Amino acid sequence: MKMFEPLKIGGMTIPNRIMVPAMVTHLCKEDGVVTQDTIDRYVRYAAGGTGLIVVEAMAIHQVKSGPLLRISDDKYIPGLRDLTQKVHATSDSKIVPQIIHFLKVARTGWRQTADMLSVADIDLIVEQFGDAARRAREAGFDGAELHSAHAYTLSSFLSRANPRADEYGGASIEGRLRLIGRVIENVRRKAGRDFPLGVRFNAEEFIKNGYTVVDSTRIAVRLAELGVDYISLSAGGKFEDAVHTPGQVLFPYSGYSGDRCMPGEWLPRGLHAGIAAEVKAHLVSKGHHVPVAVAGKLDDPRDAERVIAEGMVDIVGIARGLLADPDWPVKVRQGQVDRIVQCDYCNVCKALDGTHRMVNCALWPQGANQAPKDDPAVPVPQLAETRLTAVATDARIELKWSKAPGAATYQVYRAEAQGDPQMIDAVKVTFWSDSDVLGGNTYRYFVRPCAATGTPGARSDTATVDLPRPSYMATA
Amino acid sequence: MKMFEPLKIGGMTIPNRIMVPAMVTHLCKEDGVVTQDTIDRYVRYAAGGTGLIVVEAMAIHQVKSGPLLRISDDKYIPGLRDLTQKVHATSDSKIVPQIIHFLKVARTGWRQTADMLSVADIDLIVEQFGDAARRAREAGFDGAELHSAHAYTLSSFLSRANPRADEYGGASIEGRLRLIGRVIENVRRKAGRDFPLGVRFNAEEFIKNGYTVVDSTRIAVRLAELGVDYISLSAGGKFEDAVHTPGQVLFPYSGYSGDRCMPGEWLPRGLHAGIAAEVKAHLVSKGHHVPVAVAGKLDDPRDAERVIAEGMVDIVGIARGLLADPDWPVKVRQGQVDRIVQCDYCNVCKALDGTHRMVNCALWPQGANQAPKDDPAVPVPQLAETRLTAVATDARIELKWSKAPGAATYQVYRAEAQGDPQMIDAVKVTFWSDSDVLGGNTYRYFVRPCAATGTPGARSDTATVDLPRPSYMATA
Repeated sequence: MKMFEPLKIGGMTIPNRIMVPAMVTHLCKEDGVVTQDTIDRYVRYAAGGTGLIVVEAMAIHQVKSGPLLRISDDKYIPGLRDLTQKVHATSDSKIVPQIIHFLKVARTGWRQTADMLSVADIDLIVEQFGDAARRAREAGFDGAELHSAHAYTLSSFLSRANPRADEYGGASIEGRLRLIGRVIENVRRKAGRDFPLGVRFNAEEFIKNGYTVVDSTRIAVRLAELGVDYISLSAGGKFEDAVHTPGQVLFPYSGYSGDRCMPGEWLPRGLHAGIAAEVKAHLVSKGHHVPVAVAGKLDDPRDAERVIAEGMVDIVGIARGLLADPDWPVKVRQGQVDRIVQCDYCNVCKALDGTHRMVNCALWPQGANQAPKDDPAVPVPQLAETRLTAVATDARIELKWSKAPGAATYQVYRAEAQGDPQMIDAVKVTFWSDSDVLGGNTYRYFVRPCAATGTPGARSDTATVDLPRPSYMATA
Repeated sequence: MKMFEPLKIGGMTIPNRIMVPAMVTHLCKEDGVVTQDTIDRYVRYAAGGTGLIVVEAMAIHQVKSGPLLRISDDKYIPGLRDLTQKVHATSDSKIVPQIIHFLKVARTGWRQTADMLSVADIDLIVEQFGDAARRAREAGFDGAELHSAHAYTLSSFLSRANPRADEYGGASIEGRLRLIGRVIENVRRKAGRDFPLGVRFNAEEFIKNGYTVVDSTRIAVRLAELGVDYISLSAGGKFEDAVHTPGQVLFPYSGYSGDRCMPGEWLPRGLHAGIAAEVKAHLVSKGHHVPVAVAGKLDDPRDAERVIAEGMVDIVGIARGLLADPDWPVKVRQGQVDRIVQCDYCNVCKALDGTHRMVNCALWPQGANQAPKDDPAVPVPQLAETRLTAVATDARIELKWSKAPGAATYQVYRAEAQGDPQMIDAVKVTFWSDSDVLGGNTYRYFVRPCAATGTPGARSDTATVDLPRPSYMATA
């Protein structure tokens, strides 16, 4: 498969095209120091065979902010070095930190905006990014990634909603690019021009008056001109449309742009691949061959392979899919797709992030800090007797099945007409109600009981059910 | 060109694939009766050769609401008949009314929502749609279109945000489809099963928790099963994210979903063609060959032809482009693309709609109610001496040019590197500032002075300018 071919990114070579994008874990404490849990999380991705591991955003500045990794002082280097050493000792995965600057937010709903920064503040941010990248190198990372996506400082400057009237805004694309341009130059100077540098930014903002691919193609060209080693595309996740919960700080994934950034089950698969392909094609048309990554519901191995094989992008980002099952790469490579603990986009992980709690996956055993090990020697639970029933009501199909001994969860699959079955949910109970069905059609269902590790067992028998047409169609 | 091939839509045949979607005009008075201005507006589209004219939304119910056409009583039939007769006497264009039901809105920001309707209210709406369609037939329309897009009643029921818990919602797709299904059945019964019926609905809602193509493909299949004669796709335009201006009723095109619905210049061309193509392909995969239309920045003749020729959709909707120049079809057909009064997406028309004023186009002569006639015998203004200058500043390129005698507006064109020149704005002044340019690149500009009719004249000379690289790139 094309996704398992290595790729040169500046001076580093990633062993395959699979990337875990930066995901908040809240596995450290308020002091921002790497913990054993932090190390365990990333070693797990390395063991599973992810080509490029992007460590959760770590702050380049000293500021009060919950349990968040720090790279804002040399004192954090030993902990970070421990992390990189453990990852490098595990596999040939490459590991880079995502380095972040963010503005202040308050529980009242107030937030600092880009126009509140003085030029001296900006100069400081430029230096802080450079220092952080230098520390990343000293800590043994293979490169660094600038967080210039979503709701954070670099992204707020790139935004079409950048309110500054001076040379760092001024409603011009050059003004909006000035901060990231200076940051990149400073990073190169302090961390070395041979230190691989990636930038993550939004291919589209998805907010009122926000920028679209019309601007993101320009931003990408500038980054390529500056010699950035890879571009990682995301989307949305902005403060501008965030929903304020009284007493809570604004969570930038709570509005529509947040839906786009961490898409739930009702958004289409691979929803940003098309925009990313436009950015990639534009870069190529300008003679730039910088590798491009994209994320967004690409954890179906067929989708992941397609976006790489068709040249839409060079690297496939899988966040929640790899959180659910860090062994995704090795399982795909070994033809064990059937053993993947498949993300159902329930977004419990997003809710945990939004409330500053330790981020885990609802498919892991209750209370687990890390993805459990999948031991092929341990048998997965089976539905001894098939007792899956599917009953059509007026507008839904109700499923029930018998308990499988040892099952922790059940994957529910549906196929429409002659279509391929798709997993539509993963549940802990033994019933499910399908409200996304059209009367007049025949649907087929089966479930797969899953072990405590999340590893799915064999399919149940298939239940086939006809949903009757609604009464208004009787005369049609 | 493929777009000039006729198309059978149920019992009617449109002479070409070009559609003017429903656009509010505010050319009638509060009584909702067709005026001479109303007739003039639509006769103009017929004269220009538009294949399918969809008349602005007209209310099926008696409710107080500004200057809005009505079809809520038989007394409106004579006025509407006058309109259809005048259009039919002009060309072989087909004409259908968009018929609408909407819920109440107040200046306080309050609005009636779908869950406030009793089942008796719903039964009444079903009958009102049927009666309106019957009147449309009696008035000589070639068919009718149900407005099930944007912020209005039918769309609010289809929405994933439909708050009803009963059989008209209940978080199931069948529940959300029930009202439109009953409406279609009632329309068929009252207006006749041979009366062509189209439905306009959102391919995507573009609001938090809103539906996406995952649901719109299902909605399209149901409409096809019900024998709808054409499907017209729009997007966004919802109340849920509208920005409330104190003292004004909510305008559903004022939020992010409004940006998507009536995209300004910073949104990409043809921005909904891809989603529409997904819906069309899904329909075809299910054996449904109902014609599909889509709108959204498709007024570049190359884009319009491409979406038809590639089979992405069957009909191309051009709203603002045809408002600016109702002669677009005949000009394209006759190879006079250079004479098109090209929409620059300034959205003055949107602002006029939002404040309930008569909708005209900023490219028309000041105060004109209708698009002026383009008389090829009248010479267009020329820039006698070329005095276009382009000067690069830090982040912008400033253009100035001399006045052309008789020019009312100027089209500004830009080309990047070896690219095709694209019109980037149309202005009444003799200067322009380009803030969408990247340092280190060469840009070419020319302007075209336009007559009072908006018809552009010859190009000025081309000014070529290099924008310097920003200072932070010096060491890169």
